[in-house]
Amino acid sequence: MRIDIDRDRLVETMRAQAEIGGTEGGGLHRLTLSDADREARDWFADRAADAGLDLRVDAFGNMFARRAGVESDAAPVLVGSHLDSQPYGGIYDGALGVVAALEFVRTLDDREIATRRPVEVVNWTNEEGSRFQPAMQGSGVWAGAHDVETEYEKTDADGTRLVDELERIGYRGDEPAEPREPYHAYLELHPEQGPRLEESGADVGVVTGIVGLRWAAVTFEGQANHSGTTPMHYRSDALVAAADVVTALRRLPGRLGDASVATVGSLTVQPDSVNVVPETVRFTTDVRDPDEETLAAGVERMEAEVAAAAEREGVDYEIEPTMRASSVDFPERPVEAVADAVDALGYDGRRLVSGAGHDATHAASVCDAAMVFSVSEDGKSHTEDEFTSWPDCYRSANVLANAALDLAERVD
Amino acid sequence: MRIDIDRDRLVETMRAQAEIGGTEGGGLHRLTLSDADREARDWFADRAADAGLDLRVDAFGNMFARRAGVESDAAPVLVGSHLDSQPYGGIYDGALGVVAALEFVRTLDDREIATRRPVEVVNWTNEEGSRFQPAMQGSGVWAGAHDVETEYEKTDADGTRLVDELERIGYRGDEPAEPREPYHAYLELHPEQGPRLEESGADVGVVTGIVGLRWAAVTFEGQANHSGTTPMHYRSDALVAAADVVTALRRLPGRLGDASVATVGSLTVQPDSVNVVPETVRFTTDVRDPDEETLAAGVERMEAEVAAAAEREGVDYEIEPTMRASSVDFPERPVEAVADAVDALGYDGRRLVSGAGHDATHAASVCDAAMVFSVSEDGKSHTEDEFTSWPDCYRSANVLANAALDLAERVD
Repeated sequence: MRIDIDRDRLVETMRAQAEIGGTEGGGLHRLTLSDADREARDWFADRAADAGLDLRVDAFGNMFARRAGVESDAAPVLVGSHLDSQPYGGIYDGALGVVAALEFVRTLDDREIATRRPVEVVNWTNEEGSRFQPAMQGSGVWAGAHDVETEYEKTDADGTRLVDELERIGYRGDEPAEPREPYHAYLELHPEQGPRLEESGADVGVVTGIVGLRWAAVTFEGQANHSGTTPMHYRSDALVAAADVVTALRRLPGRLGDASVATVGSLTVQPDSVNVVPETVRFTTDVRDPDEETLAAGVERMEAEVAAAAEREGVDYEIEPTMRASSVDFPERPVEAVADAVDALGYDGRRLVSGAGHDATHAASVCDAAMVFSVSEDGKSHTEDEFTSWPDCYRSANVLANAALDLAERVD
Repeated sequence: MRIDIDRDRLVETMRAQAEIGGTEGGGLHRLTLSDADREARDWFADRAADAGLDLRVDAFGNMFARRAGVESDAAPVLVGSHLDSQPYGGIYDGALGVVAALEFVRTLDDREIATRRPVEVVNWTNEEGSRFQPAMQGSGVWAGAHDVETEYEKTDADGTRLVDELERIGYRGDEPAEPREPYHAYLELHPEQGPRLEESGADVGVVTGIVGLRWAAVTFEGQANHSGTTPMHYRSDALVAAADVVTALRRLPGRLGDASVATVGSLTVQPDSVNVVPETVRFTTDVRDPDEETLAAGVERMEAEVAAAAEREGVDYEIEPTMRASSVDFPERPVEAVADAVDALGYDGRRLVSGAGHDATHAASVCDAAMVFSVSEDGKSHTEDEFTSWPDCYRSANVLANAALDLAERVD
């Protein structure tokens, strides 16, 4: 069975949500648990009620809107994403996945389709991680990766506790923040946030997994000296050592694999004065790869480069791992459901691994999971300029709907 | 004629000045025009009066203490340095040169030597440039490199005007801040602030000139992107481009000459986030060489490296020259006076070019000038740990005294 979502209604619903916390620059400023987020949650609850869905809110504010299945005790299919945004972010990141999931159940109603399994539309709390850390917090608590009491105590830049904000906006629900029953599958549509789909000319992305990542904080400790009176051979310049590592990391993926990336995003110098040889440099490293073995090799080489640079320049070094996320391989069944939907709709799909984490990372530890990517123009993300054309929104949402329907009909 | 200064009195006088603005860490915190600077100036005026010197203070606070010559209208020999210090700096930087000059005239009195030319001991205002910019300000105004009214208006970090501080501490003098007569020569003793004398095993430095320097502020403008979703070939990473230049500048002196130095001392990254490809990097370059032609070649290569790095990484660049000081070649006569004194005293002298600017830079535009360097242990400078042993203070001050006496006896 193939369904076709209502393109105009999809666009209209995307536009409606974009007005909540909308910015003058055409983006969204809808930080998690803010007044704008409450308004977006209320709007979502109203749309779920309009569609006759049964809404539950868990103790961490995750919202689940359920459409009954023919077999009421069959494991449900979970579909959704998040309604919170980055500061002055775009209108697609997160929202497209929730709106597309809503559009899926509306289309089922239009066509009077009763699915075998129940279907739930989910809006996860705090995917972005810009107001409270970490990112993907709601799905992480739900999947058991984080302890709810610990996350309640997290504070934003003003010192406001997360749990107080949850209560203030009225979204600390009664349900435990955990899967209340086995789930059959989780599907999420999200903008790619990168340029690969556009570059390849494909219509839509079939996401086969999420890269693993390792972050570290590196410190080089050299010796501050007068830049005029200190001969070159007398120096231990922490910035020169750091520059060696920046260059090495730029080159590293070329030895690892075509899906590897490596980045030094943050770097600070002390004393940071035009005529003083840098004494201390602190910087971050970010290495990612879909394959855990390749990732481990990448981290090993990064560490070897740090040691070699320190030796070369005569400085001390320290490497502190700061974050580690294992790669996720989505299982065959949901990935093939997405790929089949792409084929059935006659689109040009491209298989790819997500370079960023998503709520699907955590959902994948609870049940079968997969993702659909829509094209991100120029790969722009976390900016008001983020853009996915309406035809691309429509195609990717249609893929989501057909893949979700497929899974909702499956016997096992 | 050879004289021998009083070693114990030199040490005692050095210790006395070190108590004014002395720190718990054994250094000096005697910022220009502060209360501590006023106290040091009062102390200097008292010592000058004790020695029967005639004190003048000019409109920029520069202090001149004159000992008459046999030929009262012969061009005088000027000897001195500065009594202001860096924040939490050492007790030798500047003060050693003023104390040694005082010790010179005291020794003339002990020996009842009447020199042909008058001798003046000078204490320049604001050599350090840490409270008010630029450094070497008093000697620069005196030599006509800066306009006195412009420098009066300079403010410190609290917004206090320089001229108000000059008046507050009672050191805005009546004399115009300019040479009131032709000078025969200027001599200055200063710690090396670098490791070359100690490394070479020499007792004392015969300074033949001061390096030229060029400072620039460089900006690379790339594109901010998600560090996970942006493939390497899609990036324009401003920090990678900057790292190329840091590495190139580390190597640059190896192609220019053994007196060249090149440094990137300050560098900042935006947005400076672990998972964002750096968009904007601003950094400084500092290239120095005693030879103007070599220096120009060095700056040209630095600019070529910036352009090449920008091209390689696909980023835009801008180079803004921020400071330029021409190199100074001290003339033969005062340099040979210093070298002769070293030989006469049986010391092991080493000729070298100063890598840092000094008041002698400006004095050299008014009359013949030269400098004596004392050994700086480990090359430490601008820190409480700055150290020159008493034997090294004595030797270098003795060289200054004998060279100054030589010049004060010269007919032309």
